[in-house]
Amino acid sequence: MSQTFLDRTIDNLRFAWRELRDSSVVRSLGLDESQNRQDRWRRQIADCLARRGGAVSARSRAAALGHDFLRLDDGGKREFLHLLVNEFGVDRDRVGAIMADWNMADDLAEQALLETELRSELVPPFRTILKEFNSLPQGVKFLVDLRADLLRWRKEAPGLAILERDLKELLASWFDIGFLELQRITWNSPAALLEKLIAYEAVHAIQSWDDLKRRLAPDRRCFAFFHPGMPDEPLIFVEVALVSGIAGSVDALIQSDESDQDDDEAVVADTAIFYSISNAQAGLAGISFGDFLIKRVVGELQRDLPELKQFSTLSPIPALRGWMDKQLDAMTQKHETGLPKAIEAALHDCDDLMGPKPVARQPNEVSERTRANIEYLAAWYLLNAKRIETGSAFDPVAHFHLTNGSRIERLNWNGNGNSNGWMQSFGVMVNYLYDLSMIEKNHENYVGQGKIAASSVVKRLLR
Amino acid sequence: MSQTFLDRTIDNLRFAWRELRDSSVVRSLGLDESQNRQDRWRRQIADCLARRGGAVSARSRAAALGHDFLRLDDGGKREFLHLLVNEFGVDRDRVGAIMADWNMADDLAEQALLETELRSELVPPFRTILKEFNSLPQGVKFLVDLRADLLRWRKEAPGLAILERDLKELLASWFDIGFLELQRITWNSPAALLEKLIAYEAVHAIQSWDDLKRRLAPDRRCFAFFHPGMPDEPLIFVEVALVSGIAGSVDALIQSDESDQDDDEAVVADTAIFYSISNAQAGLAGISFGDFLIKRVVGELQRDLPELKQFSTLSPIPALRGWMDKQLDAMTQKHETGLPKAIEAALHDCDDLMGPKPVARQPNEVSERTRANIEYLAAWYLLNAKRIETGSAFDPVAHFHLTNGSRIERLNWNGNGNSNGWMQSFGVMVNYLYDLSMIEKNHENYVGQGKIAASSVVKRLLR
Amino acid sequence: MSQTFLDRTIDNLRFAWRELRDSSVVRSLGLDESQNRQDRWRRQIADCLARRGGAVSARSRAAALGHDFLRLDDGGKREFLHLLVNEFGVDRDRVGAIMADWNMADDLAEQALLETELRSELVPPFRTILKEFNSLPQGVKFLVDLRADLLRWRKEAPGLAILERDLKELLASWFDIGFLELQRITWNSPAALLEKLIAYEAVHAIQSWDDLKRRLAPDRRCFAFFHPGMPDEPLIFVEVALVSGIAGSVDALIQSDESDQDDDEAVVADTAIFYSISNAQAGLAGISFGDFLIKRVVGELQRDLPELKQFSTLSPIPALRGWMDKQLDAMTQKHETGLPKAIEAALHDCDDLMGPKPVARQPNEVSERTRANIEYLAAWYLLNAKRIETGSAFDPVAHFHLTNGSRIERLNWNGNGNSNGWMQSFGVMVNYLYDLSMIEKNHENYVGQGKIAASSVVKRLLR
Amino acid sequence: MSQTFLDRTIDNLRFAWRELRDSSVVRSLGLDESQNRQDRWRRQIADCLARRGGAVSARSRAAALGHDFLRLDDGGKREFLHLLVNEFGVDRDRVGAIMADWNMADDLAEQALLETELRSELVPPFRTILKEFNSLPQGVKFLVDLRADLLRWRKEAPGLAILERDLKELLASWFDIGFLELQRITWNSPAALLEKLIAYEAVHAIQSWDDLKRRLAPDRRCFAFFHPGMPDEPLIFVEVALVSGIAGSVDALIQSDESDQDDDEAVVADTAIFYSISNAQAGLAGISFGDFLIKRVVGELQRDLPELKQFSTLSPIPALRGWMDKQLDAMTQKHETGLPKAIEAALHDCDDLMGPKPVARQPNEVSERTRANIEYLAAWYLLNAKRIETGSAFDPVAHFHLTNGSRIERLNWNGNGNSNGWMQSFGVMVNYLYDLSMIEKNHENYVGQGKIAASSVVKRLLR
Repeated sequence: MSQTFLDRTIDNLRFAWRELRDSSVVRSLGLDESQNRQDRWRRQIADCLARRGGAVSARSRAAALGHDFLRLDDGGKREFLHLLVNEFGVDRDRVGAIMADWNMADDLAEQALLETELRSELVPPFRTILKEFNSLPQGVKFLVDLRADLLRWRKEAPGLAILERDLKELLASWFDIGFLELQRITWNSPAALLEKLIAYEAVHAIQSWDDLKRRLAPDRRCFAFFHPGMPDEPLIFVEVALVSGIAGSVDALIQSDESDQDDDEAVVADTAIFYSISNAQAGLAGISFGDFLIKRVVGELQRDLPELKQFSTLSPIPALRGWMDKQLDAMTQKHETGLPKAIEAALHDCDDLMGPKPVARQPNEVSERTRANIEYLAAWYLLNAKRIETGSAFDPVAHFHLTNGSRIERLNWNGNGNSNGWMQSFGVMVNYLYDLSMIEKNHENYVGQGKIAASSVVKRLLR
Repeated sequence: MSQTFLDRTIDNLRFAWRELRDSSVVRSLGLDESQNRQDRWRRQIADCLARRGGAVSARSRAAALGHDFLRLDDGGKREFLHLLVNEFGVDRDRVGAIMADWNMADDLAEQALLETELRSELVPPFRTILKEFNSLPQGVKFLVDLRADLLRWRKEAPGLAILERDLKELLASWFDIGFLELQRITWNSPAALLEKLIAYEAVHAIQSWDDLKRRLAPDRRCFAFFHPGMPDEPLIFVEVALVSGIAGSVDALIQSDESDQDDDEAVVADTAIFYSISNAQAGLAGISFGDFLIKRVVGELQRDLPELKQFSTLSPIPALRGWMDKQLDAMTQKHETGLPKAIEAALHDCDDLMGPKPVARQPNEVSERTRANIEYLAAWYLLNAKRIETGSAFDPVAHFHLTNGSRIERLNWNGNGNSNGWMQSFGVMVNYLYDLSMIEKNHENYVGQGKIAASSVVKRLLR
Repeated sequence: MSQTFLDRTIDNLRFAWRELRDSSVVRSLGLDESQNRQDRWRRQIADCLARRGGAVSARSRAAALGHDFLRLDDGGKREFLHLLVNEFGVDRDRVGAIMADWNMADDLAEQALLETELRSELVPPFRTILKEFNSLPQGVKFLVDLRADLLRWRKEAPGLAILERDLKELLASWFDIGFLELQRITWNSPAALLEKLIAYEAVHAIQSWDDLKRRLAPDRRCFAFFHPGMPDEPLIFVEVALVSGIAGSVDALIQSDESDQDDDEAVVADTAIFYSISNAQAGLAGISFGDFLIKRVVGELQRDLPELKQFSTLSPIPALRGWMDKQLDAMTQKHETGLPKAIEAALHDCDDLMGPKPVARQPNEVSERTRANIEYLAAWYLLNAKRIETGSAFDPVAHFHLTNGSRIERLNWNGNGNSNGWMQSFGVMVNYLYDLSMIEKNHENYVGQGKIAASSVVKRLLR
Repeated sequence: MSQTFLDRTIDNLRFAWRELRDSSVVRSLGLDESQNRQDRWRRQIADCLARRGGAVSARSRAAALGHDFLRLDDGGKREFLHLLVNEFGVDRDRVGAIMADWNMADDLAEQALLETELRSELVPPFRTILKEFNSLPQGVKFLVDLRADLLRWRKEAPGLAILERDLKELLASWFDIGFLELQRITWNSPAALLEKLIAYEAVHAIQSWDDLKRRLAPDRRCFAFFHPGMPDEPLIFVEVALVSGIAGSVDALIQSDESDQDDDEAVVADTAIFYSISNAQAGLAGISFGDFLIKRVVGELQRDLPELKQFSTLSPIPALRGWMDKQLDAMTQKHETGLPKAIEAALHDCDDLMGPKPVARQPNEVSERTRANIEYLAAWYLLNAKRIETGSAFDPVAHFHLTNGSRIERLNWNGNGNSNGWMQSFGVMVNYLYDLSMIEKNHENYVGQGKIAASSVVKRLLR
């Protein structure tokens, strides 16, 4: 420990105090009660960090601490995390000293050495504690769920945001794509796992075990990534339908029509439709697997079913209607939208769909003209609407698939007939086509120059 | 990229050039030939780092680069690694700028943010390349073996030492003890795995498949740690004999006497003797598993064989004779040894064992008096000889087991009758006893105060 | 082939014809159409039996024949089976000849030889065909299901009854208890397997996946026997609840009260209640596994949960009310029942429960006096009512558990509150206790002398 | 039990006594000692058969009896088996009675019923005991090994031969080909299994673990059949080399020339050479799997390695030299051999190879003329030499492969250079080609008409 340890501790405590004072958690507690357990935690954490009793004992202590943590309510958890991040952070005196040496070093090699030292000094002691929670029976899952909590809490206090970022760094290192295992999920998979699909499906909710069984029928495929540290938990999974020609209606794919369930169906399929991709772990937000998943699954399918010729998604357009609303608002308030006249006109025509008393509530109530307008707007939106800050596609699903190198292939009127589909995009869905020979080029054009690849059919909608 | 990119690149190239110029590798190559492939590597690495074609493509590129690397000879590999570390290091302008901001920040929270940023900036781009080699079919093993190479090469050039340290950081994060799996190894394990035990056994060489089979007999146990990223490779393994009372002779344990091989043997055993612990991966040097392995195995054995009452090693004393040599040299040259008179006298008496024409070459040729002297010296050495720099036990095996919290239990004359045992310690072996109730206390006493735990039997040898 | 082959064939055909003529199947078919495919079958079967093209080809032919058979409707299947059993039966000339030799043999050894020969001659060629269906992908399951069909059809024609008995002999040999594997079924078992539990549960229907999950909770156990030839199909399974003290109400066990689902429940349990045993394969009727299952499961539970002290069933009394009805009828018609006066009186009192307008429809509508009468009758019935032909207990469930060596432990008023329970036994259930130290003695007493073991509590009900 | 039980028992005892009296086993025992244990066995067997204590208990009793049996020496085992077969055989009174009924039955259906009854009565009680030994931990292996013993002992006493035949019937039913599992064996298989390959290899002995590893190299394949009842024991296994063109020398295949071990070898291979097929279980003699194994392996290889175009054996000609010896003897004694003149002449020329002082001891010492003679004789022998009794090929290996539908493809001079090869066939080996499109036809021609298929190359040798 450096000699300025006392100063640093005082600083830390002051910082911690400020956070705590403002925290609603603490205000609701009698401070005295809380003081006792905080003192206990301090001792326990310090013991772990000092490796009292050796490395194995330190791990056991960390596990014991983790068990205690799990028994806390949300308030207690936040209190513990505040204490951890505020009192067991980086040693700033050491950091400052290394920086000074680095600045005075006249040799690149010496600098390199100091950089390694500095990097290590910048890893806060609290990360050691987090890392050792990995020894809990479900340790990795514990940390993933902890980050999910921190993502909800990080606005509350800067300390929790720091903790969240640090944990993300740790998880990103552990969840390197090289460690993930692709597994096919079938009706022969453990019920405890299938139950999680039902819970985690984020795009088209699974209604029942019968619905799930239909999605695992012989003409379907389901794949997920798993990590060896939490082998019972899917990280992300994709549902695929094997069909003839590109499918445009998700209702047709999901409805459990027994008549097309027979085994021969798969044989004549020439197209794989990726109709649902769901992230299963909130705590892994920002650590991306979707791109790898799609391409690994395409590879698996090509090997097993060489008769497949096309790989396409059937995707929602989640932000279309929100974007339309915003543009209409701007037009109402006479702001400059920067949109072409024809688009403004089409938007205007759709106005009566979106008020409190819309003229239609589902695709088949819409007039032919309105339908044409919506398709026109959807095509323009997908091909031209961008986020100002980043220049990327406005629609988040479009951005994901375009980054992956797919192209916009087809719009599907009444692709999703349920109320959620209507609320997002008047039921319009879109196919993104994954043509392996074009993926790199599409990606480069999109990422480098913002060019969005689309089929001639879609482009024609704009003429 | 920062605007000072050019300057930095020039700096980097200058540094690289200095290293390369001095390197015997390059001198032996025509520089022109080598220039071409270096340019190709530069482009390939830059493409990977720029994520050209997207994340999935970047991984594929890294894998291709890894394949190329594997086909290089040692000279080519070093050339590639030099280039990688020298030209794709940390961006020092960015680092300097963040440091400046940090020093001027007047808010602890702002500093915390800058620390995260700095830490991330200090991770050199070359680590990204290393990490992506993980996507090679045997990627983790590739990196472990690469570090083994770097450990041999790091003296050659500072750059390779930096790379080695960086790779160690990466591997230490991946090989967190929480991810390791303990597996029992039996005669039913795959031959391809057992073959590795034969290759990796470092303490008592396995002579043949019959010898190996004997070590996996019903009265034996063998356990190893495995990592999910390289499931066919043991990381470290331990061999255990189940016997009655503490065993003193490794010859008795290893000799394949068929007569004591019957199944009933295990039933009456009350003691587990850990007679060999071998690290199997040179590339994981410094990332420690041995402590965890011993304690996990003790736990497994206790659960499966509740009749076991004692857990002890049977260990060599590898540095005893080297230490004696050194002390005798010092005495010959009339230097101050700091040793007690009695020890100096005993050493003097052993002198004629160690010259070019020793009076004895194996334990049973030794006089009763010499034997007493050696046991006396061995006991003193284990209990008192320390490394000056660190204050830890002079003997490396003693240091390992004492750090783990064991105590010195018994010395065994003629414990190891082969020539290697004679060269290390005149055939004397030692038992370290793992008494679970004392482990933490022993560890703390040893690590904190340098106190070495020993049984009264061993202590009596010094009276 | 023997020279009297022609005669035999004519006999066979005559026999076959008689059966066919009477069979409703054939009458509904135009005979000509059916003739063609019968000729084809004859040729195919003969080819298989002659091993045309070698053993491997013969198996393939049999498999092809099996595939054809699977595509037939029930009428077609029966037609095929008639043909098979009638035209490919035992060679009676050979049988007669061996019998003659046997009768004239004057040497026991010679007789022994002839017996082996005769036994082999008595295995009809059609069994070879059945056996070779085992090479179909799900061959064993195919044969098990075929026997299930034959059990339904055997009354139709003597030939099908012969086939059924023959198939039973084959299956009994294959399903030797030594080949069966006991597996624990949990919520981690494949959904495709769990789905079968839902379908096959014969005692207390499983209402939903939630109901199933409850039955696989930590305080429950479920075990099944499997055969390696049909690894996805349970043969028989048992559901067990771990509770404190003997449970009397199945409703309490099955209802999904979340509050008692926590993990600690299992810890304090001292009693295992076997509350449901279901045979899953109709085609294995008469090949008994239940006895082995119960005792293997008791063994497993004792090993895993040494705190368990009692093993008991909670069982229905399925034939109680039917028996009461019969006795009342006899009394009404003034027949001699042979029952004690007190029983006749109690029956008489229960009369108004069983008419078309019963005074009560569930346990809690019943008067105290009626309840006492029912319990009295149930106890008497279990301890005394016997099948005249066999002397075994009248109640089939009682017979099963008494043969297994259990004793009648306790009667439970309102043990099963649903309408099925009421229809069987006015909701009364019974515990059969498996006391391992008494099992052999109880079995011998019951099987040898018809003595039924019962607790003093149950016996007291009769005083 | 029938009323004539006493008579039958007397008969049985008389029969038993005769066998026992003649048996060397019993003569060497004091009869009194042996009497005691025989009485104990009688009681134990009778208890099992009577199912005392129920079916589960009976199984346990049988298992206990089996354990006792395993501890007996060979004499004791035979004594037990004599007693079992002689005293617990078929009830001949019952058999005789059913036969009488059968002969008087005037109805085919009634006869059919009696046949089932008779068949069941002809299954001796001792088989029940054998079958229940299946409940021993390694029960199936126990019975297989018991039959191996009985095959050695059956000449001793008619009873043991009866037992052997009965056990064969039981094992043949259990080892139905439909239950066998084909597994590929690799260097990753358990050492305990690989050790068995070394022990069981019957054609070309495996010299060492290195030799074995070579036979499991990437350009090799090894497959075995397993039965679920003895999963650790191969039943039969085949070793295959993947090469370019048909291989003629087994030495070239087996020698561990490291230079051709690289992975690319397998890629260019167009031919699979089956160079060794070994039955691993003596106790399954006469229950044939070889035909199925070869064809299943051909199927596996075609699927995995579509570039394979030919499937051929490289086989010894084990009985060639013995046949030549016999013919030469006959010629010496002026008997009629029935051989063509040219063959007699060639035989005569080979005479000096076969005397006590042969002119050559290995292929390369032989003159060109002698070589031509041997090849001529080998070709004639393979194509024409038949067993008089059966009409099948004289050479047993030829008979096996010809029955399987292969053809004689090529003779290979110096195919097997070791002394064993010389003793069998002067080192000549032969390829049998498995051409899937010809297998059925070849089989039918061989089995039906004794026609042996051969390539034109081989036929030309006879011109």
